[in-house]
Parts: sequence; structure tokens; C-alpha cells
Amino acid sequence: MSRTLAFLGLGAMGWPMAAQLARHTTETGGRTLVWNRTREKADAHAREFGSEAVELSAVTAADVIFSCLPTSTEVDDVMLALDGKLREGAVWIDCTSGQPEAARRQAAGLAQRGVAFLDAPVSGGPMGAEAGTLAVMVGGDAAVLEGVRGDLAFAGKVVHVGATGAGFAVKAINNTLMAVNMWAAGEGLAALARTGVDLHAALEVINAGSGRSYPTETLIPQRVLTREFPLTFQLGLLAKDAGIAAGVVQDARASAPVLMQVASLYRAAAHTVGAGADYSAALRLVEQMNGVEIK
Amino acid sequence: MSRTLAFLGLGAMGWPMAAQLARHTTETGGRTLVWNRTREKADAHAREFGSEAVELSAVTAADVIFSCLPTSTEVDDVMLALDGKLREGAVWIDCTSGQPEAARRQAAGLAQRGVAFLDAPVSGGPMGAEAGTLAVMVGGDAAVLEGVRGDLAFAGKVVHVGATGAGFAVKAINNTLMAVNMWAAGEGLAALARTGVDLHAALEVINAGSGRSYPTETLIPQRVLTREFPLTFQLGLLAKDAGIAAGVVQDARASAPVLMQVASLYRAAAHTVGAGADYSAALRLVEQMNGVEIK
Amino acid sequence: MSRTLAFLGLGAMGWPMAAQLARHTTETGGRTLVWNRTREKADAHAREFGSEAVELSAVTAADVIFSCLPTSTEVDDVMLALDGKLREGAVWIDCTSGQPEAARRQAAGLAQRGVAFLDAPVSGGPMGAEAGTLAVMVGGDAAVLEGVRGDLAFAGKVVHVGATGAGFAVKAINNTLMAVNMWAAGEGLAALARTGVDLHAALEVINAGSGRSYPTETLIPQRVLTREFPLTFQLGLLAKDAGIAAGVVQDARASAPVLMQVASLYRAAAHTVGAGADYSAALRLVEQMNGVEIK
Amino acid sequence: MSRTLAFLGLGAMGWPMAAQLARHTTETGGRTLVWNRTREKADAHAREFGSEAVELSAVTAADVIFSCLPTSTEVDDVMLALDGKLREGAVWIDCTSGQPEAARRQAAGLAQRGVAFLDAPVSGGPMGAEAGTLAVMVGGDAAVLEGVRGDLAFAGKVVHVGATGAGFAVKAINNTLMAVNMWAAGEGLAALARTGVDLHAALEVINAGSGRSYPTETLIPQRVLTREFPLTFQLGLLAKDAGIAAGVVQDARASAPVLMQVASLYRAAAHTVGAGADYSAALRLVEQMNGVEIK
Repeated sequence: MSRTLAFLGLGAMGWPMAAQLARHTTETGGRTLVWNRTREKADAHAREFGSEAVELSAVTAADVIFSCLPTSTEVDDVMLALDGKLREGAVWIDCTSGQPEAARRQAAGLAQRGVAFLDAPVSGGPMGAEAGTLAVMVGGDAAVLEGVRGDLAFAGKVVHVGATGAGFAVKAINNTLMAVNMWAAGEGLAALARTGVDLHAALEVINAGSGRSYPTETLIPQRVLTREFPLTFQLGLLAKDAGIAAGVVQDARASAPVLMQVASLYRAAAHTVGAGADYSAALRLVEQMNGVEIK
Repeated sequence: MSRTLAFLGLGAMGWPMAAQLARHTTETGGRTLVWNRTREKADAHAREFGSEAVELSAVTAADVIFSCLPTSTEVDDVMLALDGKLREGAVWIDCTSGQPEAARRQAAGLAQRGVAFLDAPVSGGPMGAEAGTLAVMVGGDAAVLEGVRGDLAFAGKVVHVGATGAGFAVKAINNTLMAVNMWAAGEGLAALARTGVDLHAALEVINAGSGRSYPTETLIPQRVLTREFPLTFQLGLLAKDAGIAAGVVQDARASAPVLMQVASLYRAAAHTVGAGADYSAALRLVEQMNGVEIK
Repeated sequence: MSRTLAFLGLGAMGWPMAAQLARHTTETGGRTLVWNRTREKADAHAREFGSEAVELSAVTAADVIFSCLPTSTEVDDVMLALDGKLREGAVWIDCTSGQPEAARRQAAGLAQRGVAFLDAPVSGGPMGAEAGTLAVMVGGDAAVLEGVRGDLAFAGKVVHVGATGAGFAVKAINNTLMAVNMWAAGEGLAALARTGVDLHAALEVINAGSGRSYPTETLIPQRVLTREFPLTFQLGLLAKDAGIAAGVVQDARASAPVLMQVASLYRAAAHTVGAGADYSAALRLVEQMNGVEIK
Repeated sequence: MSRTLAFLGLGAMGWPMAAQLARHTTETGGRTLVWNRTREKADAHAREFGSEAVELSAVTAADVIFSCLPTSTEVDDVMLALDGKLREGAVWIDCTSGQPEAARRQAAGLAQRGVAFLDAPVSGGPMGAEAGTLAVMVGGDAAVLEGVRGDLAFAGKVVHVGATGAGFAVKAINNTLMAVNMWAAGEGLAALARTGVDLHAALEVINAGSGRSYPTETLIPQRVLTREFPLTFQLGLLAKDAGIAAGVVQDARASAPVLMQVASLYRAAAHTVGAGADYSAALRLVEQMNGVEIK
């Protein structure tokens, strides 16, 4: 059965994700419509992957609408522009790292129009998207997820984590754990640097030991010790994610003193280092706080 | 050239480490002397691995003395008992998770007697010791390390990280990073549990994503979600290690608000949950603080 | 000119505040209507102070409606019940320790009906209310405030702090500073207790020195050292206030690692000690975390 | 009975404290010897207050030796220089904001020479010293304190808080509570500033309310809002005091996540703002972390 998919937002993640959809619909006789705020990017995507660049109003033809935008605010904007125009029975899958309360509000709004909503943020980075191996954490109705599972061509792993908003909550917590692990490693390395320890040697044993985490294994050796801090994911967006996690904690009346502190430290890093820097540059604030470089 | 090694302290780590030494000296025509506070354990070790159980005073015959004791205080005690009796030219290798300032003091004291000192704590747990694959982080004179490298039969990886005390400093930071990563994951999971998210599903995506760390990959699934908290390493010792890391931070005039906060939270866990519980039981305090179980 | 005032919510604060209004309108020839969820309390207030106990629908006669309820949620409920029934030109003054975003939403809703809104939380406790010396922090239109200044009979000090929501924001920050100061003092005293210091002596010098704050001067000597923890303000409400402050921080994209940590610690105290305990009992969690009593 | 007092260290605090001693001994027929690392200052003190400027070796004539130096390290230095030369039966009163473990070591060393030791740090600032109203917190033998109580001419209040080291511990905790209260107030004001609240108005209600503390009542209005940050007490010394408090917490196996966090934040402020700035300038780091000024 041929399907029409639409993808809104061709950023660092959206571009390769939509490419996976286009390959998939090409194979299965369907269509992939792509829209981007700047039209040129959509045209380029169409040329490269065989998707169809369209105006926003044309995505109403889709069976499934994917969105992958900076924040829930941009998702609100496109939903407003499409309000009342989507097909009844369509499914909106938001892959943005969004806010759980926005998901609940958006799902309720779409439900009134007969459109289902899944919050389905992804993990794995641009390389995972290109490889089609992203992990997708899905909140919403499990039956709706089953109906679209075959469309998630960019996914290596799809996990249903709970009701509407649960996907966003898990994504925010995941990113904040990464943020905590990176910051703590930065603190530890800065202290060791001040005592004259060789940081490459220290990281080697940490990564052979129990202190290891994703940031000690990849981010810090590749981005910080090299002093390159190459921009792939903006610090301001990670600060936003940590803020979403703080909101999850607050709304759940949970107690998370470490996550809450770290959310504020990343906000400080965004103010001091710059929200547009790579997220690994948060450790530049750790360096300033310690009067030392992590290298 | 046949060597005489001595090993002081046959605890959970020391027992298999000394076994590796005994196998090694058996093959190379040397001897491994073992001493333990309770003699029975040393006798049993000798029977099982061909080491020689001895009184403390007999370890003065050794070329290399290894110690692996609960804290630097116990190392001070045995050093005092052996003061002035060790061979000139001997090397003392302390594998305890000790304090950097104790290392500097002990090294200075031994140097006056012509004995070299290396702080050489290990990472990898009892299983790594049994497999002979421990990571060893060594502080002290690099030339001294070269002279004994062949004796480190329990090691899979030996890394020279800096001057005397640097090994202890790196070990304390490593363990504290693990402690931070575990605590933060506990906070995040507790918050998610309060919102109704399935924690097994959440951990599955976190471990496929950037939030992963040693505790999310092994400790929490195996010890916490199962509600087993099996005792392999005491919470009180981890709280001690985090305290050593806090001391490293302070002595270096470093700034590490997250490590310092977490050091105090583990001390709180030791007071509330019990210093004798398994270290994974620290998350029981997180559970109490959140009125929820992580399961 | 005689005025009709209404007061909604006769709790520990509302009761004496409404009493001040009743005295004032008695002197000036006006009326004070009082409403409470349980009618008996309103009847008792009328008997004691000459106010008039009314059904909720009757407060529509008022020129000024005061509310003083547990949270913004209860304020939403009474506003909904009165929607469209209030006099055009009336002013709603909410003395609840509410949420800034609720204030903005409520003000916008009332404005559509021609009713002005001021968020005007108070500080000074039941004793300040009885003495008519409360400090009132007001957010909203300064001209509206001038029009009702004469009605604020319970106030010793009225300060206009900013636009709608600013009053609630300042109140939340004020209460959270008190929460931080109390918690930190508890930590310091617990550490000193563990070293054998006499805590009465320590507090004496702290209160003669720079470490002093409202909690060290009054709360801790009167409520904690005495082991009485008398209930005057619920811990759960202080945890809510600290949560509002955390929301202020997040919404402002501010960085406040200490306030955020402490908000989570009070939430933990509410879970472990009980939300219904006196707020000073938060230090019972500090005591548990330290294995010592502050006495 | 005439007494010979000696005072070592004529800094911002020592200068007026020694002046009080000189007035006192002038009245009672005794002598006050003063020593300073730079002799000129001692000569000036002698000219102004009738004290006697002396070489360090001459203080051995004193019945009571007061020291008031930057840290315990400088006290160690002068004690070493005077070792074995002090009168038996003399009392050394160290008014430095020192380390408890240094006090215990120093007391033990002096005791072997027949000299008693009291740790007796002071609170109240240069103005309190000039007025003779300092609060003195004393650790050590109560009987020794009684013997010198009449010599403490700079004191308005003398409180015996515990055994040797307890005075230093209480002082460190006192200063760290001040540091916490100031930092938290800075965070709260920065968040309010970002929402457009008038900070003078906010402080007015906080100081009329429960959020008040010494920093909100004096330091912030006088030093921060004015943008003056006049140097009276170095930020680096406050960071040192907070570090001593962190050491007290660690040595006592206490749990103080807020004090530990704040100790690291002040260390960060010393690195970023400069250890030589006034301690109120710590809030400049809060400002940077928030991208806003507190004014």
C-alpha cells in the first residue's frame, strides 16, 4: 500500500531522516514531501534524494506528517498554519526535542480534528540518521504507533515509553544525563589538570574503568582535548533540553538536586560561552571556573 | 631472575590480585608472600594458589610489597609496623584507593629508608582481577614503574598518570564520576517513574543514546531495577572515595560544584541507607527523596 | 466614599487580613464580605469582626475582591465560578503565593471582562497580619494600585515591584531565600554538632556575626533547637513556593544553581518528612542525612 | 596586675584590635607589643596608639600572644620562628580565620613547651574592632579562656564554643553561611532582573520579609547595587574560609551539599573575578552566569 509521508524541518537531523524516508517511499511506491522554512533546502533535498519539495499547505495530502524543529514553539507555529486542513486519520509524529506539556496540548488539539499525535524524539545524531539506526522514544497511543511503525525508516530501535509526552520526557532526561556526565567529567579533569596529571592518561584509565560515559569516551577526547569544539549541536539547545528536564522534575514533584543544578550550569554556559557554540564548549565555562584548560 | 613479591590485604580485590601474582611467580621461579589481618585467609590463599602465608614481619624479604587495604589509614599502620625493616631498593606498590596526601607522606617516609613508593590503585572489580585485566593508574617515578612493570601480573593496562599521589587522585575522580553518573541516572529515572514512564524502556533508549554511562549500562539494570542491591563494594567506601575526590578538588583550589554536591549526597546515603550496604543502594536515598521506587 | 470589599479564603493568613479589612470598613462606612470554602468559618469571622459571611456568588457586589488561597489553582476555580459576573471596574487583588504565569493568564482573562488584576502576595506571617504590618509586594498596573492603596488595611508596607506576575515572582524568591538560608544553616549546624560544638553557643556567635539570617535568628532557635517544629506554615507549601521560584528562574532563562538545588531538597523533605509538617521540619531531612540531631 | 600583651599581624582587623589592647594596657599599667611583617606599620601603630613596635623575637616577653594573620600557614611560620622561646605559662590566642586541624596541631606543639593555645577568631569587621564590640568564638580549654578573658579588650561578646579547633570551625561555618546567603540572594535578584523586576523594590520587601539576611540588608545594597564593590575583605580569603568549612564537613563525615556547592562556586568566582577583589564581587560571576547586572 503506497503511503504519502511529509517531513517538516530539514536541519542537521531532519535532512538525513527525510532522506531515509525518501529512499523508503521510493522502494515502496510512496511519496515523501519535504518542507523547510527556507525553500532552497527543500529543493536541494528533492534533487538529491527524490523527495518532493512543497509549500507548507501541500503537506495536508500526507498520511503521516513528521516534524523535526528546534523547539515546540516552532511546532506550534506550523500546526497553527495547518489547523483544520490535515486529513482525518492522519498521524503527526513530532521528532523535535520538545516539551511534554506541549505534546499533551498539541495532541488534544489535533485529536479534535481527527488527527493522532505521537511525540517521537530521536537519539543517535546525524550519523545515526544517515545510517538509519536512530533510537526513537515514543510517547502516545501504542496502537497508533503500530500503525506507523513501518514508516519509521530512519529508526534502528523504536521504543514505546509511555503516554503522550513520555517520549519528550525521556529524551530530555537522556540529554540531561549526557550533560551531567560531561560536566562532571570536565570538573574532574580540570581538578586533575591543576594537580599536574596528564589528562590523556587519566581519560584512558577512566574509559577502561567505571567512570566512563558517552562524553568521556567520545565528546571530550574528540572535541575538548583537541580544542576544536566543532559545531554539531548548539549549546543553547542543550541548555533548553536541560530546562525541559527541570520542568519534568518540577511537574512530577520529583527531587533531582543534581539535574537541577546542572540545568542551571548549562544555562550559565550558554550565557558566558554563547548559545551558538557547540555543546561541548560548555566545558569552557568549567575551564574558566578553574583557571585551567582541559587539554 | 626470580623475584620475591609480598601482598598485604586479601579482601575482595586483594585475594584474586594476589592469586595472579602467585601464578606469575610460580611460572617464573619466584615467590609470593601473602599476609592478611586474619591469618586464616592467608593460609587458605596459600593452599589454593601456592602463595606463602606469612607473618607481617616476614614480608621484609620481598623485592616488591603490594598493599590493598580499605583506606590509607590501614596502610599507615602496616608501614609503621615495618618501618626500618624493609630491604633497601625494595618498591612498595599501594593498590589501595588511598589519599594523595597520604601517598606523598608515605613516599617521603619510605624514601628515607631507601624504599621507593608507587600509588597504583586499580579499576575493573573482582572479575577484572580474576581475569588479570585490571586497569592500573600509577603515580610516582616513571623509572621505578618500569622496574616493576613485569610484576604487575593482575594488570591488563598500566598507565602512568603523574607524580606521587596522582594515581590516587585519578582513582578518586574515576569513582566519583561513576557516583555522579549513577546518582544523576537515579534522579532522572525517579522523575520518569513519577510521570508513569516505563523505566526498562527508558533505560533501553538511554543506553542506545547519549545518556549512557557505566551505571546505566550495568549497575542500574542489574542491581537496582532487580531490587537486589547485592553487596560487592560498600557504600561507605564509595562515600570515602568521593570524599577523597572532594579533597583533591580542595587541595587543587579547583571548582567542582557537582562533584562536591554529589560527595555530600553519598555521605548522606551512607548515613541513611547504611555504610555497609552495596554502593548501588545509594539510589535508595534517591527513592526516598522522591517517594517512588526505581523498578 | 464607602467601599464594598470581599475577601476569599479565611486561612491562617486570610482570617486576620480580612479582620483588618472589616475594622477598616466599619470605620469608613463600607462593607467587608467574607467567603470561605467551609461556610462555618465565614460565619465565625462575621460574628467576631463584623464582616458579612456570603455565598461566593454574592461577592460580585464588591468593588475590590481579595483572594488568599493555597495555590493559583484554587484561585482559578473561584475565578471560573465568578466569570462574567463581577462588576466592570472592579479590582481583583490576589494575595495568594501564586505563580507568575497564572497571574498573567488571570489578568488577561479578567481584563476582557473589564476587571483589573493585581498580584499582591504578603510577607510577615499571621502576626504581621494581626498587627496590620504586612509587607505587600505588588505586580501589575501602578495606577490600579494607587486606586486601591487605601483598601490595603492589613499592610504596613506596600511596594510596587513590576508588571503583572512580578509580585508573585518576588514572593517566591523571598521564600526561597529563606529556604536556602535555613537549609544552609541546618547543614552547618549539623556538621558542627558532629564535631562536638555546642550549637546554642554557635548560633549565638552566628547571630552576632555575618552568618545571620531570619532563620538563624528566629526559626532555628525557636522551632528546631527546641525540637517542637510547631505547625504554622506547611512544608509542602514552601516546597511549592521553591518550585515557583525554580519556574521563575527557568522562564527567565536565568542560572541559579543554588536555588534550583535547594528547591529539589525541599521537595525531598516534603516526601521524606511529610508535606503536612511545619516548614522548619525540613531540617529533619538534614538531620537524617547527617545522622545527628540539631539541638 | 600589669600584663604584657603581644599582637602579631596589623592588617585590616589586627590594626584596630591591637589598638584596643594598647588602650587597655595603657589604662591598666601594662604593655602591648606589636609586630608586623613590614616594620613600618608597627612603628606607625606605636606612634598612634602607644603600643611598642618590636622585632618578632621580642614578643617572647609577653604573657599573652595574639595572632591575626591571613591563614594558618603564616601562623605556623611565626610559631616556628618562636619555637622554644616563649614563656612557660604564656597563652597564645590565634584570631586568624584558621583551620581546625592546624589548631589541634599547633596546640599540641605549644603544649609541649608549656604554652596554652586558644583558637579565637572574631566576627564584626574592622568597624566592630574599632568599637571594641567584636564577637569572639573560642575553642580550647575553658579554664585557659577564663584566665585571659580580661585581656580581650576588642571583644563585645566572647563565647566558648568547644574544644581546640571549634572556634575556627564555627568561624568558617559562619562565613560560609554568609557566602551562601549572599550567593543565593544574587541568584534570586539576577533572575528577577531578567524578568524586569525593580531590584531596589524587591530588596525592600525581602528585607521586610523572611528572605532577609546580613548580605541582603547590608552588602548587596551598599556594595553591589551601587556597583562599587569597595575592597574590605578579599574574595580569595572568603573562598579559603568556605574551603575550610568544606574541610570541616568532610572531616566530620557530614553531608552538606549546599555548603559544598557554594564553596566551589566561590572558588570559581576567585578564578574568574579575581582573588584580590572585594568578596561582594563574587556576585559578578552570578551576573556573568546570567548575562545581567544586579543594579
